[in-house]
Amino acid sequence: MKQLTKIAFAAGALAVATTAMAQPKPESFVKQRQSAMTLVSWYFGPLAGVAKGEKPFNKDDAVRATTNLVALSKMPWEGFAAGTETVGNTKALPVIWTKAADFKKAGDNMQAEMVKLAAAASAGDEAGFKKQFGVVGGTCKACHDDFRAK
Amino acid sequence: MKQLTKIAFAAGALAVATTAMAQPKPESFVKQRQSAMTLVSWYFGPLAGVAKGEKPFNKDDAVRATTNLVALSKMPWEGFAAGTETVGNTKALPVIWTKAADFKKAGDNMQAEMVKLAAAASAGDEAGFKKQFGVVGGTCKACHDDFRAK
Repeated sequence: MKQLTKIAFAAGALAVATTAMAQPKPESFVKQRQSAMTLVSWYFGPLAGVAKGEKPFNKDDAVRATTNLVALSKMPWEGFAAGTETVGNTKALPVIWTKAADFKKAGDNMQAEMVKLAAAASAGDEAGFKKQFGVVGGTCKACHDDFRAK
Repeated sequence: MKQLTKIAFAAGALAVATTAMAQPKPESFVKQRQSAMTLVSWYFGPLAGVAKGEKPFNKDDAVRATTNLVALSKMPWEGFAAGTETVGNTKALPVIWTKAADFKKAGDNMQAEMVKLAAAASAGDEAGFKKQFGVVGGTCKACHDDFRAK
């Protein structure tokens, strides 16, 4: 296993080796969830122009974006681990941890509606896609209203 | 469309609205690629313990991690856009842009080997998974050696 150890440690990403050896630090959880949210914004944001008719609907682009979004929509939640409530530069509100079931429900809603957005993209259903973009945006807003500092 | 605009802008993520309206700033590309790499480390790192036999192989966990990794492995590349060579706090080396074909090949290698790691996980092939983890790690190292500042 020495070769494997060498590769793992030499991979240039010290974070990788560190993560492998021990429970991540609270700061790493915050970075994890913020990275996931950054990428959700990255792929969701440009679709607003399509939904509003300012940019043409392109099926391939919509499928690629929503495939990424369905994957990403599952990721941020593990970053809201216990012990990370007051760590770092965060807009996460304490209610995330005191009303954990409500927070989970809000996250689940977003994930479920994102799957429908991806389905509309795959079907090439432009009208359905535009309508469903607004529904997904509504789940983002609902969660941010309740669980994210202004 | 007024309701849709309202939702998109009210979604709490100004970045979303901004991204939708215009080409992202160079800094946003850097943040995009670094966010993707952070998440690759997050899901890849803990697998090292499994590969080295320090943690038991759990098929469900391995499938979840590698499903995320296959999706994430496709994302960082668009963040290395032209015009972002010297932006922000980056370890990206200029050779990424001057030897773009080599950089793409290195990224493609990683993505292809990651797909094989996911396949081993899905098959519950513990030995194959452990071996392939080292292969993927090697593709990380090769790219970091050539294209990332130490």
